[in-house]
Amino acid sequence: MSRLDSFIRRLSAQRACLDRAAGLIGDIDGPVLELGLGNGRTYDHLRHILPGREIFVFERQVAAHPDCIPDDDHLILGDLACTLPAAMARIGRPAALAHADIGSGDIEATARNAARVAAVLPDLLAPGAVVAADQPLSDPRLIALALPDDVQPGRYHLYRRVAGEAA
Amino acid sequence: MSRLDSFIRRLSAQRACLDRAAGLIGDIDGPVLELGLGNGRTYDHLRHILPGREIFVFERQVAAHPDCIPDDDHLILGDLACTLPAAMARIGRPAALAHADIGSGDIEATARNAARVAAVLPDLLAPGAVVAADQPLSDPRLIALALPDDVQPGRYHLYRRVAGEAA
Ligand SMILES: C[S@@+](CC[C@H](N)C(=O)[O-])C[C@H]1O[C@@H](n2cnc3c(N)ncnc32)[C@H](O)[C@@H]1O
Ligand code: NI
Ligand code: NI
Repeated sequence: MSRLDSFIRRLSAQRACLDRAAGLIGDIDGPVLELGLGNGRTYDHLRHILPGREIFVFERQVAAHPDCIPDDDHLILGDLACTLPAAMARIGRPAALAHADIGSGDIEATARNAARVAAVLPDLLAPGAVVAADQPLSDPRLIALALPDDVQPGRYHLYRRVAGEAA
Repeated sequence: MSRLDSFIRRLSAQRACLDRAAGLIGDIDGPVLELGLGNGRTYDHLRHILPGREIFVFERQVAAHPDCIPDDDHLILGDLACTLPAAMARIGRPAALAHADIGSGDIEATARNAARVAAVLPDLLAPGAVVAADQPLSDPRLIALALPDDVQPGRYHLYRRVAGEAA
């Protein structure tokens, strides 16, 4: 498999998981959280498939396509380590969906990011909220969901925020 | 359609055209030319689908994944405006396939690149050689070929180098 093949598979898996997650939150109120804007492709996808939802974006340094940058009220600038724990003050209510695309070539930074997100993100989520992530997230409040058929296990991840405080 | 959707479509069209082009040159001798290395994804794809062929890569400034950088003998560094007209000295014989992925956000630079490639690339190609390109290439020696079924017209381009000097 070439790098072009695996890149197409990764993006297709990502899209399939976002579409699935959007379909699972029909009964759950709340905004959407996008962790990592990057060039804004998945942010744009989320606003296409969830046109009625408010979307808050977390990003350290904005470098997205100009059409894919949220307004200031929906852009939470800074490192996730600082912004995520304090985010409820900005978003105001528990979120229905979160997407975390936080991996990079730096394996240690990616692992730190994933550990941080797993520990703090559940506090920002409504019971039954869904998380799609490029990294595995390990926390007792997040239960792994089955992936869409065409997504190979491990390529992307889906979780449901359990109803109680912890399992 | 979201930017994620159109990006997946573009990459899939690109791959379908490269696969089609590789299938069309079975009877034609010669190396492969990759115009624009970028992050090396299509270079990697070309060496996967054409394992027996020599591949020469043209690039102004290498910024590819380390695994996807050709050796010095197959890397032709510099602006296409300079390197392409002089390339026969490096490649030694007419090429069987060329892939030109030369577009950028800069519309004028892209148009200049496409005009240059259309004018000079045919000189480097064997009769019957195939060209896949992200930009339309207009030259009497290049005849447009039908695209694979799943590729929308205009999304990518395929040409055959005519047998004679000019049409
Ligand atoms: C892989 S990209 C996201 C790509 C995006 N999903 C898209 O489709 O374009 C990851 C992004 O997360 C941001 N990021 C990574 N770690 C971060 C951190 N600790 N705090 C804030 N932003 C971070 C990076 O700056 C980068 O823009
Ligand atoms: Ni391989
Ligand atoms: Ni659209």
